[in-house]
Amino acid sequence: MPARLLAYSARAETVLSGFLPPESQAPVELHRAMRYAVLGGGKRLRPMLVYATGAALAASSEALDASAAAVEIIHAYSLVHDDLPAMDDDDLRRGRPTCHIVFGEAMAILAGDALQALAFELLAADVAAPVDAGTRVEMLRVLGAACGSHGMAGGQALDLAAVGQTLDVAELERMHVHKTGALIRASVRLGALAAGCRDAELLARLERYGHCVGLAFQIRDDILDIEGESHVIGKTAGKDAANDKPTYPAIHGMTESRRLLAALTAEAVAQLAPLGSRGDDLMALARFVAERVS
Amino acid sequence: MPARLLAYSARAETVLSGFLPPESQAPVELHRAMRYAVLGGGKRLRPMLVYATGAALAASSEALDASAAAVEIIHAYSLVHDDLPAMDDDDLRRGRPTCHIVFGEAMAILAGDALQALAFELLAADVAAPVDAGTRVEMLRVLGAACGSHGMAGGQALDLAAVGQTLDVAELERMHVHKTGALIRASVRLGALAAGCRDAELLARLERYGHCVGLAFQIRDDILDIEGESHVIGKTAGKDAANDKPTYPAIHGMTESRRLLAALTAEAVAQLAPLGSRGDDLMALARFVAERVS
Repeated sequence: MPARLLAYSARAETVLSGFLPPESQAPVELHRAMRYAVLGGGKRLRPMLVYATGAALAASSEALDASAAAVEIIHAYSLVHDDLPAMDDDDLRRGRPTCHIVFGEAMAILAGDALQALAFELLAADVAAPVDAGTRVEMLRVLGAACGSHGMAGGQALDLAAVGQTLDVAELERMHVHKTGALIRASVRLGALAAGCRDAELLARLERYGHCVGLAFQIRDDILDIEGESHVIGKTAGKDAANDKPTYPAIHGMTESRRLLAALTAEAVAQLAPLGSRGDDLMALARFVAERVS
Repeated sequence: MPARLLAYSARAETVLSGFLPPESQAPVELHRAMRYAVLGGGKRLRPMLVYATGAALAASSEALDASAAAVEIIHAYSLVHDDLPAMDDDDLRRGRPTCHIVFGEAMAILAGDALQALAFELLAADVAAPVDAGTRVEMLRVLGAACGSHGMAGGQALDLAAVGQTLDVAELERMHVHKTGALIRASVRLGALAAGCRDAELLARLERYGHCVGLAFQIRDDILDIEGESHVIGKTAGKDAANDKPTYPAIHGMTESRRLLAALTAEAVAQLAPLGSRGDDLMALARFVAERVS
């Protein structure tokens, strides 16, 4: 991964640790569970998207910190709830026991709930970004829409309904456009809003970039579930097939899935043309998503 | 209950129904679960607090609708998660089967998650209130803080840790100040913010009013759990004792609990003095909280 992307990821780690309540603060067990869920060494793809988008539009890193932390905290909460026994029932995540294995189910539910609230609170309380209050309200609305029943939670509901079903390509895409795509698109949009971007054509291109990267991310995930090894991908490999979950390789076959992944990555990169070299980080990110091995 | 309070409750019902996604919209099952969780005939205490506070400060009902809906949606989501088997494991709520009994655990978790996101989204998207964007951001921050680890979710974590423990009065109060108090205080504060109130002394009095009403609400709840009947209170009576949960009557005895309830109600009412007759609805609400039988 290029050094600038690694720097974004490292910055996100520091910023997240600062935004999360310390373990010394009551309620101690809840704060321990929240920090465990977030600070576990994820890829920080969503914060990288916020930083890379904002930097392409000349925003300072300080102006992007709250947005970067908010999207990652939302992502972390969704994983905690996703892993619960009533949901995907997974006990391994990022190579470590999942939150409910360590802290119990009740605390994992509460930690997820509190993390979602924290994301909105810190985005609302952010004073570092030089955006006007109207833009700040719009950023909160974008985050809310990305998390709700027409966004991430809606995608998870579609996922739940899809187990054991035969989905067609359009249904599978619709599920992923919501489940993982909504928050990835929101990451790009928050980066652009925090940078004060008002260029409608550029915003539409960035929206399309986020859409393509989101779908590419999911296809790569499906491929890794088949070809990856648990100790590299940090979660149980082969779970999709075992759970009879619809995936791109299951519908398209592996060759066509790889072709689709390449086409989406090319389309994402093409959206960045007007940015010139300022789009280099976003380009590198699109390639990283397509080529990652974990 | 006075007619004006009933009218606030009825308005909340209509407003909530309008803000919730229709069941006809995909994902249908998720939206059904969300509507089931919210539109089940609760008392609508928190929306009544928003409307009564705002009306006391001359806000229009339209300006208060989004805040009223947001706090009730947060309350409803917290009940859905609270009732889960891993939490309080309750199968009766407001006289009906709980959300996870009807829709399954996974869908109940997702419905709660999506409801929390919806509350922030609709508060951010509100265009009816004539408040400036800066105040709107502050309202979103207040709601986030009330829901998070230093608010409602934190109180639930303290509650979880308290089962089977002997709490002293200060610890019991701290739990309730967070668990139910945070959202009740936020309801009052959102009503005041939506009304554009900037009178620091009045805001402090309203904050104290919310604090007293929140604790009074909990003491009344504890008393009803002992003296109430399941078919009237709409949930399983005697559950606190059966679950070995600390309550006011368990610590103080019934007589002292009733005295404390009366004292808190009197203190709440005393805060309203500067409002004169404009505080009548808030006064009636404080009395309703102390005297309710369900």
